[in-house]
Amino acid sequence: MIQIEHLGIAVKNLEQSNELFTKLLGKPPYKTEHVASQNVSTSFFMIADSKIELLEATSMDSPIAKFIEKKGEGIHHIAFLVSDIYAEMKRLQSEGFNLLSQEPTLGADNKLICFLHPKNTNGVLIELCQEIV
Amino acid sequence: MIQIEHLGIAVKNLEQSNELFTKLLGKPPYKTEHVASQNVSTSFFMIADSKIELLEATSMDSPIAKFIEKKGEGIHHIAFLVSDIYAEMKRLQSEGFNLLSQEPTLGADNKLICFLHPKNTNGVLIELCQEIV
Repeated sequence: MIQIEHLGIAVKNLEQSNELFTKLLGKPPYKTEHVASQNVSTSFFMIADSKIELLEATSMDSPIAKFIEKKGEGIHHIAFLVSDIYAEMKRLQSEGFNLLSQEPTLGADNKLICFLHPKNTNGVLIELCQEIV
Repeated sequence: MIQIEHLGIAVKNLEQSNELFTKLLGKPPYKTEHVASQNVSTSFFMIADSKIELLEATSMDSPIAKFIEKKGEGIHHIAFLVSDIYAEMKRLQSEGFNLLSQEPTLGADNKLICFLHPKNTNGVLIELCQEIV
């Protein structure tokens, strides 16, 4: 685990939340991106070496729509940057963590990603991510 | 806003969660601290320049006990490091954010802190913090 790569925040209206976080952080998002595999639209704000990712569902069966329905808007996940996602997935499995997929998948922001099941992590949804070079 | 100073995670059992996050992050907490003003016991893990703070309630009227009762264990707040907490509080108020206190208070880890009301921040509890020098 190298650093906190980003925090994902589930929002109902990306446009309104972009305005809000622009005021909060004192600068606008540096990019927006649609992630078809997750049915979400996202925007990214830099803060030092980490990012805030806002996520809006683009369909009712998006994980973000389900999260908001259950818990309301708020922090959805923490993503940790790793240098070798395959090695880290293997290490964590051997430590007893449950992975949500057995292989990394393609996430936003040009990353290979894998989530850990929040049941084993005090209710925190944790993402591992590695830059695709 | 300089950087993500820490993420606060509400847990039921600090000892068990310390073991869990030690496995997850590959290293133990570098300190534990009791914060009497908030009725919490905390532990801190470094990851690059940021920290993960685990929080366990030490009494039933602790904000952490109330959070867990309502939402379960999970991410409780994001703390942003600022260089001048008074100036930042003033700026955010002028932008329409609501502060939970009109003056900074003494938090864990030798910090002056102030929370923003999550009603105005997409359900995210945000802490400003400044190192006491």
